Amino acid sequence: MSWRENLRKVEPYVAGEQPKMRNLVKLNTNENPYGPGEKVQEAIKAFDSGILNLYPNPDGEDLRHALASYHGLNDDQVYLGNGSDAVLAIIFLTCFNGAKKLLFPDITYSFYPVYCELYHIDYERVPLKEDFTINKEDYYKDNAGVIFPNPNAPTGCLLSHEDIEDILKHNTDSVVVIDEAYIDFGGESVIDLVNTYENLIVVQTFSKFRSLAGIRLGAAFGGKEIISHLYDVKNSFNSYPVDALAQKIGLASVEDSDYIKDNAKKVMATRARTCEELKALGFEMTDSYANFIFVTHPKVPAKELFHKLRERSIIVRYFDQPRIDNYMRITIGTDEQMDRLIEALKELVK
Amino acid sequence: MSWRENLRKVEPYVAGEQPKMRNLVKLNTNENPYGPGEKVQEAIKAFDSGILNLYPNPDGEDLRHALASYHGLNDDQVYLGNGSDAVLAIIFLTCFNGAKKLLFPDITYSFYPVYCELYHIDYERVPLKEDFTINKEDYYKDNAGVIFPNPNAPTGCLLSHEDIEDILKHNTDSVVVIDEAYIDFGGESVIDLVNTYENLIVVQTFSKFRSLAGIRLGAAFGGKEIISHLYDVKNSFNSYPVDALAQKIGLASVEDSDYIKDNAKKVMATRARTCEELKALGFEMTDSYANFIFVTHPKVPAKELFHKLRERSIIVRYFDQPRIDNYMRITIGTDEQMDRLIEALKELVK
Repeated sequence: MSWRENLRKVEPYVAGEQPKMRNLVKLNTNENPYGPGEKVQEAIKAFDSGILNLYPNPDGEDLRHALASYHGLNDDQVYLGNGSDAVLAIIFLTCFNGAKKLLFPDITYSFYPVYCELYHIDYERVPLKEDFTINKEDYYKDNAGVIFPNPNAPTGCLLSHEDIEDILKHNTDSVVVIDEAYIDFGGESVIDLVNTYENLIVVQTFSKFRSLAGIRLGAAFGGKEIISHLYDVKNSFNSYPVDALAQKIGLASVEDSDYIKDNAKKVMATRARTCEELKALGFEMTDSYANFIFVTHPKVPAKELFHKLRERSIIVRYFDQPRIDNYMRITIGTDEQMDRLIEALKELVK
Repeated sequence: MSWRENLRKVEPYVAGEQPKMRNLVKLNTNENPYGPGEKVQEAIKAFDSGILNLYPNPDGEDLRHALASYHGLNDDQVYLGNGSDAVLAIIFLTCFNGAKKLLFPDITYSFYPVYCELYHIDYERVPLKEDFTINKEDYYKDNAGVIFPNPNAPTGCLLSHEDIEDILKHNTDSVVVIDEAYIDFGGESVIDLVNTYENLIVVQTFSKFRSLAGIRLGAAFGGKEIISHLYDVKNSFNSYPVDALAQKIGLASVEDSDYIKDNAKKVMATRARTCEELKALGFEMTDSYANFIFVTHPKVPAKELFHKLRERSIIVRYFDQPRIDNYMRITIGTDEQMDRLIEALKELVK
């Protein structure tokens, strides 16, 4: 008998790498290429470190209020966490304890099955259609819950507001979670529906649209009742997950939303141009509403392109898994970064 | 059938309150009364928010290196998390999966049984001795792991380095975790033993000694093998828990350790004086090595004192639970704060 036998066995997730190369074009973790803005910088400079000896406000009151106002909700309809991964983990722990199965797409965010294993939740992977879009009717059946990102990852495909409302109408007995990490790059949020469907939770992040991946902030929106349950579970084992400075930074970001929206427009314009140029090179792709595109080439295998781009210090994401092993997920960077990508791909598919 | 039936039932932890009173003397959550120091303030002012669009270094390399050097360890012997509660949660999830029982004291940090419930870990509460100290021989038996704070919370009682080594010698087949949240207020750390006992993990926090409760930083120290297991489990479901700015702030704090140690000396001096003055008022107390004291009065019930102090805007901690329901846990604040406490208690026990 050794202490080693009591250790949990896991397959560590391999996150998009953060290599230290010179002249790197990093298009592998869906980071926003633009900074978080002047107001964030000012909030940091103005921060009085003399209060850091105190625990942060446990529920992030000021930031919750600002986010609630931004989305036209009440403060008690907002839940804050240390990044949307932490928010998702609390939701899985809180909401999907039925004997039935949680439903999510076969191609989707890879942490969903991990949270299920962590919290002993049974699940079923529902296959996407051939074109990688969600078939809403597949979710019209008994379940312990429904979750998917909208737009979906890593496909970028968007489900319409109307289709999501149809899924909600067919699922009144379980919690439905829409993970809107990428919604602000052209999609339509369903946050407005939380006032109608008390079993709906919408998750968003400060990492993408708000250029704050470095600070770890995520939020969930829902009815007052379900949000209070999330807080009860969180408070049962972790009282202060969101730090005081992150709360101030998040607040400054919400107050600077016009600037942030302009950046998102730039990303969308760059996405449109990149798609056109890649199509001219023979690439095929999904209709992405995210800050990344999901592309394949009929002649050159994605895995080969992935490695050859890497040799040129251009890092994209490749998933060696069924159905998508001939695709690359490419983050939309600045126009200059995409020019380097397009130049490289031009040579590689010639 | 309703979605409500699938919700996790919990008893929310009630953290030490953070009331908004004027002229408040807040001695209820063991916060350090002194600020985190000039270097922390400078690090915040110098921080370039332009990198916040990028994910933080997932393993906090620079901070790990600084902490490792501070403790005379290698970098791969340090694990970082978003507060020591998050570090403890990962340790419970990773290390205590045996069929036997995890052992911890009956009077101890209240989150231990919560983590056990969360991760389906069986446990046994081992009674402290009558004087609230740990009887090391009680831990010389089969178990799935051992954990206790040293000094213990909320008693403040310290176990000697030698006694902890004895516990380690009798527990080579399970992981032993020493939670040193309060070790720097007069105790002797057992971090040096991680090179000898590969099943030892020592947990520390930036919240108390380093006056950084607001920033959420905690660390674990151990052998290279066990630390890498903690990272594997963490990486399997949460890639970037520690934000970029918190990493810089932690680094500045480690570089300012002389200033921090001076503050701890001030806290210890105030503790000694407070104990003397309270003894003169008839109070009895444990021999605390933490930044709080654990006191009782033979004539006036603790619960009554707790409420009457609150009426005077002095907040301490009272635990309405067996064995300790006639004690108050009082954080050591500044000398001025303790003077107000002593004045109030003088009236109340008269």
